[in-house]
Amino acid sequence: MSEANPAFAAIDHATAQAHEASSHWAASTASERARLLRGLADVLEQNATALIALANDESALGEPRLTGELARTAFQLRGFASAAEAGVPYLQIDDAAAPGAPPAGRPRLTLVQVPLGPVAMFSASNFPFAFSVLGGDTASALAAGCPVIVKAHSGHPALSRKVFELAVAVVAQQGLPVGVLTLVEGASREAGAYLVRHPNIAAVAFTGSYQGGVALWRVANERPRPIPFFGELGSINPLVVLPGALANGVAEVAKSLAGSIALGCGQFCTSPGLILVFDDADGRSFTAALADALSTQSPHRMLTDSIRYGFDHAVGKMASHAAVRSLIEMREPRELHEAGDDSCAGPWPRLFEVEAAAFIANSDLHEEMFGPAALVVKVRSVAEVLQVLQAVEGSLTVTLWGVQQNTADNLALIRAAEQIAGRVLFGGVPTGVAVTRAQQHGGPWPASTQPQTTSVGYGALARFLRPVALQDAPDWLIAAKRGGTLS
Amino acid sequence: MSEANPAFAAIDHATAQAHEASSHWAASTASERARLLRGLADVLEQNATALIALANDESALGEPRLTGELARTAFQLRGFASAAEAGVPYLQIDDAAAPGAPPAGRPRLTLVQVPLGPVAMFSASNFPFAFSVLGGDTASALAAGCPVIVKAHSGHPALSRKVFELAVAVVAQQGLPVGVLTLVEGASREAGAYLVRHPNIAAVAFTGSYQGGVALWRVANERPRPIPFFGELGSINPLVVLPGALANGVAEVAKSLAGSIALGCGQFCTSPGLILVFDDADGRSFTAALADALSTQSPHRMLTDSIRYGFDHAVGKMASHAAVRSLIEMREPRELHEAGDDSCAGPWPRLFEVEAAAFIANSDLHEEMFGPAALVVKVRSVAEVLQVLQAVEGSLTVTLWGVQQNTADNLALIRAAEQIAGRVLFGGVPTGVAVTRAQQHGGPWPASTQPQTTSVGYGALARFLRPVALQDAPDWLIAAKRGGTLS
Repeated sequence: MSEANPAFAAIDHATAQAHEASSHWAASTASERARLLRGLADVLEQNATALIALANDESALGEPRLTGELARTAFQLRGFASAAEAGVPYLQIDDAAAPGAPPAGRPRLTLVQVPLGPVAMFSASNFPFAFSVLGGDTASALAAGCPVIVKAHSGHPALSRKVFELAVAVVAQQGLPVGVLTLVEGASREAGAYLVRHPNIAAVAFTGSYQGGVALWRVANERPRPIPFFGELGSINPLVVLPGALANGVAEVAKSLAGSIALGCGQFCTSPGLILVFDDADGRSFTAALADALSTQSPHRMLTDSIRYGFDHAVGKMASHAAVRSLIEMREPRELHEAGDDSCAGPWPRLFEVEAAAFIANSDLHEEMFGPAALVVKVRSVAEVLQVLQAVEGSLTVTLWGVQQNTADNLALIRAAEQIAGRVLFGGVPTGVAVTRAQQHGGPWPASTQPQTTSVGYGALARFLRPVALQDAPDWLIAAKRGGTLS
Repeated sequence: MSEANPAFAAIDHATAQAHEASSHWAASTASERARLLRGLADVLEQNATALIALANDESALGEPRLTGELARTAFQLRGFASAAEAGVPYLQIDDAAAPGAPPAGRPRLTLVQVPLGPVAMFSASNFPFAFSVLGGDTASALAAGCPVIVKAHSGHPALSRKVFELAVAVVAQQGLPVGVLTLVEGASREAGAYLVRHPNIAAVAFTGSYQGGVALWRVANERPRPIPFFGELGSINPLVVLPGALANGVAEVAKSLAGSIALGCGQFCTSPGLILVFDDADGRSFTAALADALSTQSPHRMLTDSIRYGFDHAVGKMASHAAVRSLIEMREPRELHEAGDDSCAGPWPRLFEVEAAAFIANSDLHEEMFGPAALVVKVRSVAEVLQVLQAVEGSLTVTLWGVQQNTADNLALIRAAEQIAGRVLFGGVPTGVAVTRAQQHGGPWPASTQPQTTSVGYGALARFLRPVALQDAPDWLIAAKRGGTLS
């Protein structure tokens, strides 16, 4: 089905390979899947120095951050290996036959899991290891028994190719079909749409912008046979500072929050972008301390020119909004240059402030500023906090500082947070997402296109499986399914 | 947001009530939910005689079938009550904090379930109890903590009103908000779309035709904030008769299959509509016996005029298809009338036959004939069976007769069946869907809009819940969540 775009032929080739590998990999045992995942983790670690240097060249995220991210990516691959060995992708509920007439009488029913088939995985720019070639989406899809076609991100092409090369060698060494893991390049929207539309693709995993994600989600729904589209589209991550949280002073907490806002140049989908602060003496002093602490952060260069352009555009819009006050003065490029900075440097962190009523009334203030910036919303009551949270609608996280006591107000705040978020924090900062069974990374629309699923943690595996009930299946089949020796 | 259509004001009213009841019902304990569900089961049984008579007047499904269906509906309500008491809608995974730096070090994470909110439930015509006002969708949504707005089916309006009246009395008697269960009428497509578009609706459960379901699914996706649409859209349910399955003669198995095809006048979404038979002596003798057995069935009147019209249209198209041979001669209305039949009587059962290659090449032969009719596909090899199954793409069930042995051919058939179906049967007939934990009622598109979920069995509850991870939540909150005493 190739057309003019040169990326199309590569996509045809990769998806054909994935299709060909699909039955083999679907029938793989837990130990085969675990061996591949551990082999991929090993090869990342064995080549850590070179890979981190390459990643830093392309992303500017810094060696300490990239060292941690590579470790997390290897940890995640091994975690999914253990999940496969524990039988998660073969999960089985076996209901014995019951004698007698229905509804109580019934045949034997055994619920097993079947892999969906080849998964198109769109890498993100902001996690060149953990949400890229061998990131969580790839690890969970492979553990589920699905071949993966990686759509490399144009923000780190050399790293993507190098990691893929290492992975291909592991696949070959383990005697697996080449189609288990393939990679395609080409940054155009047409190529992305072509991949999502491709008849060989059974599901899509995507991490990226709202615009890009929604456009591809529509393509997935417009197929003759629509397929699941697991899109994680970013978020403004409200953080509520209740008065009780400031009882021990404002300096330390303000510093910790400023660090979270500027971490990785604010290029985290869990970066706290909306800070709800009470308009009282402590609250005002916290906001001032936050502005101070943020001013001393010096974020590094952003991931790509288009992300930098998007950030400048978003803060420009915010700064010029009639209802918004800027809490950190903009520094001019010349001033930055005189301070020893250059054109490659990162953007200056920004902090804005708005009244709750104005925030609620202006939906253009609800948009994410992807980068080191946040908007302080001045609130005067718990009721007003609830209204602001309701106006946000969907977010990956909500953080509540100061709700430790079992009170009616706190319960109302917790419920409101649960209504709009996939993860609710009772302290700390939302950046940093632990890889564990109980993790939920995916909130109501627009944070996620499938808010009932998670893209981080071992629950991510379920996205690529479909339950099938076997009615009165022969014993040998059930035994084989149980051992994961037949899938 | 009312417009011209008189149904709109009723929808505004019902969804406002549901919205108002939503927080209360989301916070309900397991025992409150179980009490409501058991109260609803009791009231169905206490009024069984009158309800079954009313249902028979409107549906013509017959008292024995409706008696069984009411029993199943009460059983199902009580089953979901037990599931709530077992903690299913409060499901909790509690990962303790781990010391040290990430990725191994982590905060405490507790995964809980949060109800989505008000569910619009579109009743089906063919199960006036089990897929209507108090059917499986309603039972599972209520058990999940979601208020339900029932869209009554115009095929049984009086029964819908009566069951709803009884339910409302139970809700009132238990002191619950009236919005926990509401009902709207109005058969127009505009009213259905208005309900799905309504901002107070958080999810949709639908059982019905492909056309109607896909149209509403599109409406759900076109909302400013799309919502999950759980549509069960019907199916052709292939049944494969392998030569070994006929070793003990053809008469009994043909009779059993004819009974399944004509059951409830063929108005089951699991009715076997595609029979794959080998073109050998036994196979030909089985097909002849099936045609004989089906001719002696006398199906009752169909559920609605439009279903009858649709059936006549579908069999007319099939009968006039160049590649198709009719195995049961059409009887003219006059002939039926002379045989003592009248204009209210059901349609004559039909059986057609086609070569495998012609079936694969003609996608218009893949469409469901909703009613007492089936298409026999003549196959010559296991490879041809696999090709026919692949051509079907998505089905609620596939039945395999004669795959008891562990052979390469049988494994290939089982894998092909798993690829296209939500339930694979190793004998028996697909009509009859047990309500149990291991049930899976929902196959790949077009059988279901969300093939990773089920609309029958206790897994149905998960459709109306969204996981939320609580990070470092206070102990009192986790304890309350665990007991289902706080939601």
